[in-house]
Formats: sequence, structure tokens, C-alpha cells
Amino acid sequence: MDIHVLTRELHVRNDSKIVFYIADGLGGLPQQPGGLTELETAQTPHLDALAKQGISGGSIPVFPGISPGSGPGHLALFGYDPIKYLIGRGALEATGIGFELREGDVAIRCNFCTLDGAGKITDRRAGRIPTDESAPLAVKLREVSIPGIEVFVEPVKEHRFVVVFRGQGLEGHVHDTDPQQTGVPPLAPKAADPGSEKTAQICVEFIKQALKLLAGQPKANGLTLRGISGKPNLPSYEEVYGLRAAAIAVYPMYKGLARLAGMDIVGKPQTLDEQMELLAQNWKDYDFFFIHFKYTDSTGEDGDFAAKVKRTEEFDAAVPRITALGPDVLVVTGDHSTPSMLSSHSWHPVPTLLAAKNCRTDACEKFGETECLRGGLGLFEAKYLMPLALANAGRLTKYGA
Amino acid sequence: MDIHVLTRELHVRNDSKIVFYIADGLGGLPQQPGGLTELETAQTPHLDALAKQGISGGSIPVFPGISPGSGPGHLALFGYDPIKYLIGRGALEATGIGFELREGDVAIRCNFCTLDGAGKITDRRAGRIPTDESAPLAVKLREVSIPGIEVFVEPVKEHRFVVVFRGQGLEGHVHDTDPQQTGVPPLAPKAADPGSEKTAQICVEFIKQALKLLAGQPKANGLTLRGISGKPNLPSYEEVYGLRAAAIAVYPMYKGLARLAGMDIVGKPQTLDEQMELLAQNWKDYDFFFIHFKYTDSTGEDGDFAAKVKRTEEFDAAVPRITALGPDVLVVTGDHSTPSMLSSHSWHPVPTLLAAKNCRTDACEKFGETECLRGGLGLFEAKYLMPLALANAGRLTKYGA
Repeated sequence: MDIHVLTRELHVRNDSKIVFYIADGLGGLPQQPGGLTELETAQTPHLDALAKQGISGGSIPVFPGISPGSGPGHLALFGYDPIKYLIGRGALEATGIGFELREGDVAIRCNFCTLDGAGKITDRRAGRIPTDESAPLAVKLREVSIPGIEVFVEPVKEHRFVVVFRGQGLEGHVHDTDPQQTGVPPLAPKAADPGSEKTAQICVEFIKQALKLLAGQPKANGLTLRGISGKPNLPSYEEVYGLRAAAIAVYPMYKGLARLAGMDIVGKPQTLDEQMELLAQNWKDYDFFFIHFKYTDSTGEDGDFAAKVKRTEEFDAAVPRITALGPDVLVVTGDHSTPSMLSSHSWHPVPTLLAAKNCRTDACEKFGETECLRGGLGLFEAKYLMPLALANAGRLTKYGA
Repeated sequence: MDIHVLTRELHVRNDSKIVFYIADGLGGLPQQPGGLTELETAQTPHLDALAKQGISGGSIPVFPGISPGSGPGHLALFGYDPIKYLIGRGALEATGIGFELREGDVAIRCNFCTLDGAGKITDRRAGRIPTDESAPLAVKLREVSIPGIEVFVEPVKEHRFVVVFRGQGLEGHVHDTDPQQTGVPPLAPKAADPGSEKTAQICVEFIKQALKLLAGQPKANGLTLRGISGKPNLPSYEEVYGLRAAAIAVYPMYKGLARLAGMDIVGKPQTLDEQMELLAQNWKDYDFFFIHFKYTDSTGEDGDFAAKVKRTEEFDAAVPRITALGPDVLVVTGDHSTPSMLSSHSWHPVPTLLAAKNCRTDACEKFGETECLRGGLGLFEAKYLMPLALANAGRLTKYGA
């Protein structure tokens, strides 16, 4: 079910303000059976108050059992079907380092590797070469010159870097050149469809020149191309919801995902405090605000229960700065669960609350995984949060007569 | 949503064990408003303990309001979309009597009928001719000989028998020959698509020879062909989940359904005790076990509330033989509800529990229809049980970066 089929037709404009306050990886697990999760352990008086006056539930990012990455997790929150709109790995990597992809660009995740005298791979990750040694090599590859094509090369971390081709007639369906094993040469770039033949040829030329530039380098003298992909073609928030949307995020990945959905990236905040300042400063200029808080995820990934509890309390403490502005609809949730007991993203439903004047509240007294189970939103697919928010903001008209 | 789109890509292998312990027709209804269901009446200490430590909910086999047969009910449990994968009635009937269909076979449910001198049907079911009289007639039809085609004829019950054609170039889309009324002759076999023309011709020849063999028989001198269908093309458990799967079932229908999903059929158990012995004996050789218990359904179909309660207690009593083996994920549910108050399959959600280390338990204290309503699985489509089981077994990687 693509919700945009209806929201595109039914949305109307008004002066309401919608805020999505997102704690990445919010959901968790107890440390022992019958115990409390990170969120249930944390002191969250402001979130509890919102849960009491609002409506709660558990959101399922993709479908039951599926642990999403940041891409599908956020797309679902933004109302884009995470199965229909798959962001290619190259495009996501470019987005993640803040590269602003344009229509028609092709993005590639590249790995440095080592090759023997016969051109066979000896180490697929070039011994996980340190970033301070790999970055200059990536920068050196900017010397590659291909007529009619702009070539961008951006260092990432360790053996990874990103390449973007910009030019006419490029499509992104080219197979990986990483053979996934050592003792064989990298594969030749091969188009998966006729429209991507030109891109494949450019890949061949890029590799040829890159190998010359890397020749004799002791740490990394080869490269592989992976996740070759075009800019994902998401309809914009303006088009499908009629919303002027702003993203207030610290990390490039989330700014990038928001930009793909047509949101404006507001400021360059480094702290939650600065994010809240930007929210107040931009309050009049936008209809929708996406505020991203990273540390509930990173502490979960670290397996640090206590730190996640602390970060959750920090997230809670900033709530009054949002409510002081009087949003018409405030949604608090995460893009997925990251239980510190698993040190990874997980499939568990994400605690979610929506506070708005006419939300029809439920019996929930606080904000937590178990309490959400008796909430009025029930268990629901995350992509339905956007139409619920629009409806509560008075921004959706009746469907059918 | 076909879950295999993702499970096919995301599954990984490990040493975990998953058990689906299925009480056919598990869900029920109280004998009077406000009363207890069969499951709630039964003493089920082991299931209650599992519900307490696990996560519960109500599974909906197809969609709300739909009462499934055994085919769709089990396909959904096995993770196959029961709308997308419809098993033809002929194929299901053949499967149900233990006939092992091969790729390219065409299976047909046949009815004996009576014809008058003009070839018009006088009784569509030949007076529900007793099995001991119909079976020899079905066996007699094995004399039919069609060049290049193997013909199998298997008696079923009363007026019913099964015919399978095996040969080159057979497809299963041929219309029924049963006109659904008396006073008219059976319809001629007619292909529904060009690929099934050959099958239609073979049906014509089969009927011609069969009528000769039945000529003058007092109880049944005619036949109709129904549910003509090929072997359903289900992707295997190995392909879509990476699971070596074993079915431990008493009745042919459930063995057949499991075989269609690529499961191995283990042993020839006649009792639940023997099924549990087989489970222990085969524990090391498989990743996934489907254990089928029939009698919660058959007592429900009989309208015998007390007998269903007793059978439910028998089902419960065997639980420790499963838990003693230490499964990583144990799912207990049914393929549909069979309330003894209705003496039939029904549309009501099926009580379901999943017990696993990181399942994020809920407030449920026991196993029953009403208690399941406050469970952490909520009301969910049965096809999502497989991805949930795989996730809880650590067998699904992250979707998207």
C-alpha cells in the first residue's frame, strides 16, 4: 500500500505545525526476563506526560521480523514504502557523507584492495588501511579525467571511498566488481540493463586510470566498485503531503535521507541544544520538522544499557523546548529498535506516541515498550505515521464522497 | 506483501533450532457469552508457562473474516501468502491422500455419478455410494490406458476418487466437467489456456474409456472431473529461509502440505508420543520442525467441547518433551480456529505464542484467546510468523544500510 496514492490527492494546506522528534534506535530490551527496557528504566517525565495526553502504539518499520538499516527505517517514518523505495548502497553511502546527489548522478561505494603482480586480489580491504593513509589515495583519484563526465571522489573510512559520476545518459544498474574472494582479479564492470551500458564503460575507464594512479602504492594498489546506483527517485514532501519540511540533524546520513525526501537541511547543529535553537528560529518558515537524535542508537550499538538510559533522559529533557512552541502534532518515535542487549538494530516494534488535540487518547500512563502495547495506535506499520500526523493536523480531506 | 522478497535475500545460517508446534483448529469459542473457550477451560500449565516467558498474540490466517481450509491455513503458517499461492483442489486432494505429486503432474478430484440412458446426470454423487463399493470401481479405472501418459487412480471416500496424469507437456488449467446440476450431461473437458489443450484431450480420452469400464454398473455409471490442477509451485524452505525443515505429522494431508514446501517427512508416527520421539531422534539433522496435532480440530469439527478441552490438555502435556531439547524459538499456534460451538473452521484469530530469548515478552500470564489480546504480537497475519521466528533465531540480517 503506497500511502501517497491518497495523500497526494487529499492533502490541504493550513497553518499547522507537525514535529517528528526521532530518537534513533529508540526501542530496547530488558537486561533480564521480566525486567525493564532502557526506555522504561529512564526517567522521562516529559515523554510520559505526552503519552498520557496523546495516543501510543508500536511501529513496525518494514514488516514483523525485519531489522531495518537507517535507510528503510527513515523512509518508513517519512511515509515512503520501504520495500518500494530501496536506496542503492552507493547512493546511501554518498548521502551518508553529505554528498548532495543530483538527478542522473551515479554513486558507487568503492573499496581499496591489494593486487598481486598478476592483478589478482590478495586483500579485499587492503588490510583495513587506516583512514589517514587511504584518504590521500582517494584524493589522488580525483586526477581521473573522463570526457563529458564530472567525477567526484570522496574519502570515507579506512578502505572505503565514494565515487560519483555526473553526466548525460547515466543509469545506475551496473554489477559489483568485487568478486567476494581473493586469488582472482576484480570483475569487469557489467551493465545489468541496456540503459546502463554507458555507465559500465565509464566504470571501465575510471578503473583503468585509477590503477595507473595507484601503481606502486604499498598499502593499496587496486580497487573494487560496489553498490553502483542512481539517485533514488523519491517524490518530495511538497508534492505528496503539501508540506514545507525542514530537517534538523547532526549527522550527514540523516540530513541526506531527509534531502532525498525533499526536506530543507537547516543549519549545522552539533548538539541537541543547537537543534532546539534552530527549531525555534525556523518555526515560522516550515510546516514540518524532522529532529534527529543519534545517541539512543549509538549507545545501543555499543551494548551500553546505562548509557542508552542516560541518552534517553537527555532526549526527554529537551521535550519542553518543542512543546513550548505549541506544535499541533508532535510525534515521538524511532526509526527502529536498537536494544543494547543485542548491540544491533532489531526487528522489535518501536515505542511511538502522537500528541495532538483530537488524537483520541488511550489508557497509557507513560512512554515505554510494554505500555505502548495497550495504546490506541496498536501495532502498525511505520509508514502510516505520516497520514496520521497529517490527519491530526487537519491537513487531509475526506476520501470519496 | 510476499515476505520471501526479503527472506530470500536476508537469511543466514546458524545452529539454531526452530519448532512450530501446531494444534490444528486451536482457537475456539465459549459455550455461553462471557464463558471460557476450550483452550481457556483446559488445564495447560506448560503452555501458560511459555506464554508467560514468551510473547503472545492472535494470528489471522488469511484476512479478517476468512475461514481457511487446511491448505491456506498451513501455507500461511509456513510463510507463503495464502492468496498468492493457491493450491488447486485436485492437487490438494491428491496431497491429502499421500500421493506424492511431481513437477508436471496434473491432479483431478473426481466424483462418481449416475447417468440415465441419454447420458444425463441423475445423481451428482451416485447416492453417496459407500466407500467399500466405490473403491473397487476406482481401482477398475486403473485399466484406462493412454499412450505416453501414466494414469494413477486412487480411491478416496464415498463417491470421491483422485486421478493423476503424468507425462510430457501437461498443464493444469482445464475447467470442471461437473455441471453442478442434474438433468444435463457432464460438460466436456475444456482447456482454459492453450498450454492445457493436451490435458483437456487426455481428460476426454480418460472419460471415454472410464465410461466403458463403468457401463452397466448399478451404483455408479458415470463420473465428473473437478479441481483439475498442477502441482503448486512453492519455493522451498531451503530456498526462501535457508532452513533444513522436517515435518512430523500423523495425517497425509499435513505431510503433503509440508512436502509441497520442501520439508522432509520424518517417520510414520501414529501418536503424539511417537512424534516426540521422532523430534528427539532427528534433532541434530534439521533446523526447523513442524509438529502437527490433529485432534483439536477433529473434536472441534465434531462439536465436542469437552473432547476438545481434553485433547488440548494432551497437546499441552507433551510440551516438556520439546522444551527439554532446548529449541531457540518455539512457536505454538494453530492453522485456524475450529470452535466446537460452530463444528467447523472459523475466521477467529488463533491464539499464538512465540518463546525465545530476545522476544521482548509482554504482560500475558497464560495462553488463551482473551489473554492473547494484550500480547506483544498483537493481531497479525499468520504469514509473518516465519520472519519473526527467523529473526528470533538470529537468522535474518539487516535490511538496507
